[in-house]
Amino acid sequence: MVSSFNPTPRTLMGPGPSDVNPRILSALARPTIGHLDPEFIRLMDEVKSLLQFAFQTENELTIPVSAPGSAGMETCFVNLMSPGDKVIVCVNGVFGNRMVDNVKRLGGEAVLVEDQWGTPVSAEKLRSTLEQHADAVIVAFVHAETSTGVRSDAKALCAIAQEFDCLSIVDCVTSLGGIEVKLDEWGADAAYSGTQKCLSCVPGLSPISLSKAAVARVQSRKTPVSSWFLDLNLVMGYWGQGQTRAYHHTAPVNALYGLHESLVILEEEGLESSWKRHQHNHLALRAGVEALGLKFIVAEDFRLPQLNTVTIPDGVDEGAVRKQLLSLYNLEIGAGLGVLAGKVWRIGLMGYASNPRNVLFCVNALESVLSGNNAHINRGVATEAVQKAYSQVGV
Amino acid sequence: MVSSFNPTPRTLMGPGPSDVNPRILSALARPTIGHLDPEFIRLMDEVKSLLQFAFQTENELTIPVSAPGSAGMETCFVNLMSPGDKVIVCVNGVFGNRMVDNVKRLGGEAVLVEDQWGTPVSAEKLRSTLEQHADAVIVAFVHAETSTGVRSDAKALCAIAQEFDCLSIVDCVTSLGGIEVKLDEWGADAAYSGTQKCLSCVPGLSPISLSKAAVARVQSRKTPVSSWFLDLNLVMGYWGQGQTRAYHHTAPVNALYGLHESLVILEEEGLESSWKRHQHNHLALRAGVEALGLKFIVAEDFRLPQLNTVTIPDGVDEGAVRKQLLSLYNLEIGAGLGVLAGKVWRIGLMGYASNPRNVLFCVNALESVLSGNNAHINRGVATEAVQKAYSQVGV
Repeated sequence: MVSSFNPTPRTLMGPGPSDVNPRILSALARPTIGHLDPEFIRLMDEVKSLLQFAFQTENELTIPVSAPGSAGMETCFVNLMSPGDKVIVCVNGVFGNRMVDNVKRLGGEAVLVEDQWGTPVSAEKLRSTLEQHADAVIVAFVHAETSTGVRSDAKALCAIAQEFDCLSIVDCVTSLGGIEVKLDEWGADAAYSGTQKCLSCVPGLSPISLSKAAVARVQSRKTPVSSWFLDLNLVMGYWGQGQTRAYHHTAPVNALYGLHESLVILEEEGLESSWKRHQHNHLALRAGVEALGLKFIVAEDFRLPQLNTVTIPDGVDEGAVRKQLLSLYNLEIGAGLGVLAGKVWRIGLMGYASNPRNVLFCVNALESVLSGNNAHINRGVATEAVQKAYSQVGV
Repeated sequence: MVSSFNPTPRTLMGPGPSDVNPRILSALARPTIGHLDPEFIRLMDEVKSLLQFAFQTENELTIPVSAPGSAGMETCFVNLMSPGDKVIVCVNGVFGNRMVDNVKRLGGEAVLVEDQWGTPVSAEKLRSTLEQHADAVIVAFVHAETSTGVRSDAKALCAIAQEFDCLSIVDCVTSLGGIEVKLDEWGADAAYSGTQKCLSCVPGLSPISLSKAAVARVQSRKTPVSSWFLDLNLVMGYWGQGQTRAYHHTAPVNALYGLHESLVILEEEGLESSWKRHQHNHLALRAGVEALGLKFIVAEDFRLPQLNTVTIPDGVDEGAVRKQLLSLYNLEIGAGLGVLAGKVWRIGLMGYASNPRNVLFCVNALESVLSGNNAHINRGVATEAVQKAYSQVGV
């Protein structure tokens, strides 16, 4: 007989899931109600308006897809693309490559704008690519690359897409709630995110938002959306206005309680305050890990405060260090992904996990375990560096 | 400012979600750990083996899809079908029609075996259709039609599919845990279910199971699966054996805590005991509602004990009755769907919700509200009928 599962509490400072606010865990355990219950319909309306706030948009079609972030990505491509479409995909990490895979599977032609991992998407390259491909219909890029910790200039990239009459698809999985996301100001046409990053909710849902132009494209398709589950023409009928909901699939009721609570918390704190908090904790973590002697792989101007990608000291077995951090301190940090596997660690400071206790703890846990592994690091100076960084920003 | 959402506790006796066992709600609120954490990998292994037990199968590929039941349906079709394939779909309710929609969107040809809503799939019609369509490659049908409350003979239908060299796809959304499901004994090739029916878990995941022959078809595809998110070639890499997991998407960690707990509860009770409990409570509910004068629309031999579809007394506004049941007694029962809309109620007795307290409560709440609406029903006899039915089965 299998017994109940009681996980060891961890501190989650990897690339996500991040530490979940206890208020959200409590919300998950509230009594389940029906997915057509009038109270649930009120919840859906509130989730929509809170997501509009989080994305800074008035887009009517702003809803959570009932599946994780990669299903949110797929929702955008499967609804906006048709077979044969030419799509410009900017690739500077794992998630840009996943977009390319989506385009190909859906029978489209992907034209790549490639930048080195760890650098942002080049607006100039995008422009010259669009000049050579006047028949492109979509531009897709990642705002915050979770595999490298790089921020790209979403406003500039969306403006170029618009100039060339392309719809834009923006991956905001790791950015939403942690750094500035302003869909309407950017003029973005479709964006998707995840719940388990800077919203500090459990993984499993993917908030998306589509502009009027994007909705018009979905509604005027000549071929049906190949996915029944993700067809927004059907999903809109369920997430539509007021009481006139048409049953589509059974909504993940309790997961939506969690998302609702996470958005209530974000509204209470305020977007600017949340962004500022992420930045301050990033500066303190940076001071600490640089004092140890580790280096950031991303240039200062393009660093994500919520995802810190740092080098591994020479001669250190990075997997053994992560294993010891987990077994001794119950601390999870992330490994490198793709071409960066084995070369970097990814330290997340996302949402609820972005706080001074975690910063100090992580820096000291790293110092402790690296010392135990005889790594060449500077000892005994990191704690003070963290303290100084917080004083400088007045925290 | 939006405030936290605190739903009114309901008794869920519609077509799902059903009442969730409080043990499962507690499990959902346990601390989130990483989706690559060794403890989480142990959880995944346990979920797999518990699902093999629930489905009565040794199929290696027995996992939960990270999205609701309709995504489980789509997973089966998108992986097993290729464009141009001829698929026999048995239709005797809403969910058979949804299968047809899946086949068409994926570029297949759907050949329908149609039976009246409220009757089971006819094995003879399936056989004669297969005789006329030797080039068919898949037979798909619904084991337990949630829209009508009918059980079809899965064993007979799978055997016919096999005889004609077709893979079978079986919808077990409403059957798993409530009535006999034995994939290996049936020789079924692919089955999918939901968590929010007889497993009494929250909605959001879809357990699936594929036979060796089905996995071989997925692995030997000539065209890629059009969905990246649902491509089992990738999903298998993450749900594979032991510690060698390849990252695919971020698993819905806490939702899996819930599913794990629901399966632990099922194993503790035992499958036969669970099936028997569903049958006994169905007999008592039946005695009560028939005493009131309501009639079942499905012939006795094909009734699902977990989904009781009954007629509405003449002249009664069925929507008003459901509204009053919800507002006065916090009791949810289901409306009719599709051609049965306005004509029937669907009373669920699924999983944790299948218990004598709910049966007696529902029968009496119906009597109370119908009396208040001056319906022509037999009054004052239902309670005794329920009691008598329980004595007869020795409960």
